[in-house]
Amino acid sequence: MKRCRVCNGPKVIELRQHNAAFCQEHFIRFCHDQVARTIKKFSMFEATDRVLVAVSGGKDSLALWEILVELGYDTEGLVIGLGIGEYSDESTRLATAFADERSLNLRTVNLAETHGFTIPGAAAQTTRVPCSACGLSKRHIFDEQARTGGFDVVVTGHNLDDEAAVLFGNVARWNREYLARQMPVLAAANGFPRKAKPLVRLGEREMAAYCVLRDIDYIVEECPMAAGNKHLQYKELLNAMEVQSPGSKQQFYFGFLERAAPLFTAELEADGQPIHHCGVCGSPTSGAVCAFCRLKDRVAIQ
Amino acid sequence: MKRCRVCNGPKVIELRQHNAAFCQEHFIRFCHDQVARTIKKFSMFEATDRVLVAVSGGKDSLALWEILVELGYDTEGLVIGLGIGEYSDESTRLATAFADERSLNLRTVNLAETHGFTIPGAAAQTTRVPCSACGLSKRHIFDEQARTGGFDVVVTGHNLDDEAAVLFGNVARWNREYLARQMPVLAAANGFPRKAKPLVRLGEREMAAYCVLRDIDYIVEECPMAAGNKHLQYKELLNAMEVQSPGSKQQFYFGFLERAAPLFTAELEADGQPIHHCGVCGSPTSGAVCAFCRLKDRVAIQ
Repeated sequence: MKRCRVCNGPKVIELRQHNAAFCQEHFIRFCHDQVARTIKKFSMFEATDRVLVAVSGGKDSLALWEILVELGYDTEGLVIGLGIGEYSDESTRLATAFADERSLNLRTVNLAETHGFTIPGAAAQTTRVPCSACGLSKRHIFDEQARTGGFDVVVTGHNLDDEAAVLFGNVARWNREYLARQMPVLAAANGFPRKAKPLVRLGEREMAAYCVLRDIDYIVEECPMAAGNKHLQYKELLNAMEVQSPGSKQQFYFGFLERAAPLFTAELEADGQPIHHCGVCGSPTSGAVCAFCRLKDRVAIQ
Repeated sequence: MKRCRVCNGPKVIELRQHNAAFCQEHFIRFCHDQVARTIKKFSMFEATDRVLVAVSGGKDSLALWEILVELGYDTEGLVIGLGIGEYSDESTRLATAFADERSLNLRTVNLAETHGFTIPGAAAQTTRVPCSACGLSKRHIFDEQARTGGFDVVVTGHNLDDEAAVLFGNVARWNREYLARQMPVLAAANGFPRKAKPLVRLGEREMAAYCVLRDIDYIVEECPMAAGNKHLQYKELLNAMEVQSPGSKQQFYFGFLERAAPLFTAELEADGQPIHHCGVCGSPTSGAVCAFCRLKDRVAIQ
């Protein structure tokens, strides 16, 4: 495959899993089409919905935000200062520069200023991996900003590689509850906003190429606290499988959504959780105090 | 871990996934216990059942046969001459020597003599991988020998590495029917005999060690026709995962059996197949002529 599948012009990228090559113009259009198709197929949101885009300054979330803007959606960005040294500073700087250049609205929440702790600080005081406190904090802030800002949906830049690796981890342990929550869209429920992942049809390599071709300046480094974690190990295993059989990552993830997810979600739906409100912050929770406030209580500098 | 977990004697093997080491005597006993426990836990067969052991001359099936004999089961062996050149000759020779040395009863079926074709011959005339015709032929002969010989169950030497790799392949494609049939015991149904895999708690490394320590002479080479197949690729991926997290292969396979398999088997049970008898050989089949007879019709030298 030497030439663009659409116009037969010189290719800039070849996608083995799609058995196709594209020129710059048609690769960009391919990415936009894949996102539009995903939003429609999974009924993620409508043209009239207010969309909060969680941005990290990385390739996926910035590309996603640009694509959603170009597709005409009503978006605002949200970046969280996690306090992971240089990495977080650069992340916030790049997200801010991206929004400024395009006159887009970006919300900024700084964990240390607003909640009195940083991720490295929290990790040092808990026995779990740093990604655990980080994920919990980000989800809490996404939910809270969506609720108070009147957004209809929170979207994140998880791509096919991310989702296939998460699925692999859930399958390695056969965690039925996590498997049931693996869908690319989760309906609003129990006071939590709708969540959607419009990039699930595109991989890391495509998103990096998209940013390079569209001149989007993004943070290239992986988070230093994630180095060596299981998620990255699973990505490597799936990459090895993909090299042997192009398209197998896609087949693994979408095969699950089509043929296995219904068996797991049926169970979840039958088992609805009671709604409470966190006694500290008012967030929905299954307990008396939400997990974020419990973390904060343990690790924040009072 | 430098010493035997049971007697504190010098170790001969360390099993990281069990966080244990064993001396020779207690490793052998460990293997026997694991098999006995598996047979009981999955209600594979009883002391009074007649057990047909499918042997290939490889480490797994010969070790399994020895263990079953030592546990007191009423067994006969079955070896199939598949016609894969030197490999098959050696396989039959080693299985025969094993049985002779122990005065065990071994049935021998030669595919070329009995059915007029060999696996390489069949593979050359079909578009599918050789493992496909081979698996089909072996299953047909196991079933037929069990039926005509009055056996209660056919047992095979599939170990944890085999079953985890098969599961991985089924999960990579999310084949619901195959996932439902992944259990280590399948009840007799529709004229097919009961099938059991008593080695699922033991891995390749343990079985090789078992044979070395018990002086069982087995065929070390992989089948030459299987080289580079997906099953071996999946084994490598799972081995990479096991190195990173000892015990993860076990967790993957047994986690599936405990937590996910019921979701898949429930579906299969609801969807029983009608029973027919093959118009050519009389085997149970869902069609008019069984898949083995259709293969034979295409590839046998008339």
